[in-house]
Amino acid sequence: MPRKVIFISAIILAIAIFWTKYEETKSISELKKIEQWAEENKIKVDKSIEVEKFKIEFDQKEWNLLKQKLSLTRYFTALEDVPSFDYGFDPDYARELVEYWQTNFDWKSQVDYLNKYPQFRIRINDTLIHYVHYITNPNAAKKVNLLLLDGWPGAFFGFFQAIEFIQKTYTDISFSIVVPSIPGYHFSTPLNKKHNPVDTSLIFDGLMRFILGEKTRYFIHGEDWGSIIASSMSQLNPDRVLGLHITMPTSSESNVINNICTLLLPYFPGFFLSDQEIKLDFSSRYSIKSKLLKFWHEFGYFHLQATRPDTLGHALTDSPAGLMAYILEKYSSWTFRRTDQISGVKDGGLKNFKKDDLLTICTLYWMTNSITSSMRYYANSVSAMLEYREKNLDLFNLPISEKIPVAVQMNINDIFVTPFWFVKTRYQGLIRYNIFEDGGHFAAFQNPQTTAEDLIDFVNQVQSKL
Amino acid sequence: MPRKVIFISAIILAIAIFWTKYEETKSISELKKIEQWAEENKIKVDKSIEVEKFKIEFDQKEWNLLKQKLSLTRYFTALEDVPSFDYGFDPDYARELVEYWQTNFDWKSQVDYLNKYPQFRIRINDTLIHYVHYITNPNAAKKVNLLLLDGWPGAFFGFFQAIEFIQKTYTDISFSIVVPSIPGYHFSTPLNKKHNPVDTSLIFDGLMRFILGEKTRYFIHGEDWGSIIASSMSQLNPDRVLGLHITMPTSSESNVINNICTLLLPYFPGFFLSDQEIKLDFSSRYSIKSKLLKFWHEFGYFHLQATRPDTLGHALTDSPAGLMAYILEKYSSWTFRRTDQISGVKDGGLKNFKKDDLLTICTLYWMTNSITSSMRYYANSVSAMLEYREKNLDLFNLPISEKIPVAVQMNINDIFVTPFWFVKTRYQGLIRYNIFEDGGHFAAFQNPQTTAEDLIDFVNQVQSKL
Repeated sequence: MPRKVIFISAIILAIAIFWTKYEETKSISELKKIEQWAEENKIKVDKSIEVEKFKIEFDQKEWNLLKQKLSLTRYFTALEDVPSFDYGFDPDYARELVEYWQTNFDWKSQVDYLNKYPQFRIRINDTLIHYVHYITNPNAAKKVNLLLLDGWPGAFFGFFQAIEFIQKTYTDISFSIVVPSIPGYHFSTPLNKKHNPVDTSLIFDGLMRFILGEKTRYFIHGEDWGSIIASSMSQLNPDRVLGLHITMPTSSESNVINNICTLLLPYFPGFFLSDQEIKLDFSSRYSIKSKLLKFWHEFGYFHLQATRPDTLGHALTDSPAGLMAYILEKYSSWTFRRTDQISGVKDGGLKNFKKDDLLTICTLYWMTNSITSSMRYYANSVSAMLEYREKNLDLFNLPISEKIPVAVQMNINDIFVTPFWFVKTRYQGLIRYNIFEDGGHFAAFQNPQTTAEDLIDFVNQVQSKL
Repeated sequence: MPRKVIFISAIILAIAIFWTKYEETKSISELKKIEQWAEENKIKVDKSIEVEKFKIEFDQKEWNLLKQKLSLTRYFTALEDVPSFDYGFDPDYARELVEYWQTNFDWKSQVDYLNKYPQFRIRINDTLIHYVHYITNPNAAKKVNLLLLDGWPGAFFGFFQAIEFIQKTYTDISFSIVVPSIPGYHFSTPLNKKHNPVDTSLIFDGLMRFILGEKTRYFIHGEDWGSIIASSMSQLNPDRVLGLHITMPTSSESNVINNICTLLLPYFPGFFLSDQEIKLDFSSRYSIKSKLLKFWHEFGYFHLQATRPDTLGHALTDSPAGLMAYILEKYSSWTFRRTDQISGVKDGGLKNFKKDDLLTICTLYWMTNSITSSMRYYANSVSAMLEYREKNLDLFNLPISEKIPVAVQMNINDIFVTPFWFVKTRYQGLIRYNIFEDGGHFAAFQNPQTTAEDLIDFVNQVQSKL
């Protein structure tokens, strides 16, 4: 049997090598096309763009309405023979959190906390963008521009602790930090038309040029959609991106070589995986079976958000308790599932976070009425992906130039993990690929210090070579 | 190329024929095992079972609370560049329906209407069952027992118009009609433990024996889960089922022959499809590509309900408007999508139904707080399917004896359609397979007369041969 496997694998490998050459040729011509497309679609940044200082207002009326709705919350009871969090958010813990939200949570002081960093709103190409812009240690000689990008269901505020840590720790560097909200998320609303991560990447590059000047160069840290937007920015504006630090690298799943390699991976882990991945027994996570099981168990939310966001949106827009359970389930299952800290645990591991922090995220989605538009980002992305593919512009998946240094911060409990070899194939300038043994999907929110340290180490590493 | 296709197909067919023999032998031994299992798990019906008359109460307090919640509904706005119902339930039409629900809908008279037929509640094996039992034309000489089964997101009341039609039209037959609610649905709540369609089928057979006597024999009409429960009843109690009339036959997708046949179907439609299917150009619906696309576009709800019903449940339990949009989207997309009467139509085709009827369904789910338990039926089914498979008891998929006459009422706009050959393979007593050119998923609710006529025709056809 093993001999057969080796024989068949050898043949498949030969095909793969042949195919690689073919794909390479194809990539080069596609890259040319994309360069041209990026040039044509580049956001014009001129004086006509108006920017306004932005302060989050505490709206007593809205807050009362939210509390009224929370006081009217209806619940259901758990099944006796299903462990907590196996069928989703536990109803008893939901009640505990809703009661806290209604009686103990102080939205007014959270608003003050959210206003801690200077914020702005700007309209670029008819899209409203909210962003934080903060300069740490302005007197330091060394200057670094840094763009921090979050995703769903995150919020700009998830980076605040990391920014504090950076400010305190790296006093010899002045970071000019920009944290925008994705169009359709929080104060980057309302959004009247479809908008996808490629659109966002063009707009965010325009934003950076607007804030920091046409010739600005910057580092990007991206999580979740933020990783995808950051990757797109690196592809479309390679001259401006000094380095890419992401927690969710993506590689084209529909690519022929990748599919063959996925089949081969379990038999030749040494060829595809880093030592750390092998040590941590990641190869079992990467098998086809495990991928399919993961798709089934974890991607129901994606499936629905990518096909019927507006159906789901009605309930989540109207019910704060429902919104909370829907959002916070992800802070449970994307942070603790892999290490089985969830099943049967009443709070699904959420006690590891501060209640106030979790509820600030929920209240932000609530107050800005942005849950539906944030979920539409999935449907928009899938339809855009198909549209680009029809035009032979594979904007979501093409390789990223080796000129751009890339660091991948993989977190062991994240549900999104991509094998080293696949990351390396797409991100050709990959210089770091570290797996963090206590992290989950919301890296900077969960572990602000570790994440910031890894990011700034990478920045220093890249800068030392410039 | 066609020659190649024929050659390869011939080889595959040969394998299929060989495999059929193997599967047949396997089936026979499995059927024996299942017969034994059914015998062991048969519900004991004795005098200790208590039944109580049941009347739906109009609860002014609950109704006021619902109206209060409706008055507080929060909405979102549609995207300008996405046609109505493409991303799900249209927000403007949701607002129209919610306002009607709050101001014009008369739940009190609907409760009177719902109480029109005698209802009961009974506890069988610790499971609470609500059912309607009604005898049409009691003086007619010919007696027929009829079990009507609905599914998700349906309700017992969806059969009322069909019952009225039967009563008026078939005065020479006395039908003893039983319409139970699936455990976890409406007044068959609360449910404290996992419960799946096989459990239901055992309990419903017990119910029929309890109501009509140990030696009762009956016909079943099943839609949606009702079709699956009915199929299971036919498998587990073949001696009691006189005939099976279903709108959603199922065939094992994981079966080797079926998979090979699915691949061959587009090349040899004449071998797998009925003349009507070919005439209506159904073969394009049955291709692998079209199946995958259907899975992607239409099964997000299934995916989430089968994996995280309790996450979704919080919002739908708390928000009546959200519950309405979530449920009624199915009355739109499962009834009109195929004929493209939806995309861009503000009401998604729902104006074809009476508002009061649609809102009665929603109010039933609301008042009984049963949306989460009804959605758990999906998760329970998937986990049961895996459990049975581990025990080599394929209770969801094994063939149904040719002794049981089967009629399939396929509706052209239903998203669930199964090719003739596949139906025939599983339902070996198939004697009718008709496609209705104006029907959708909720057959008796949408077309009570057509559905009732087809059902009673079938009953007469079977009885004439007895």
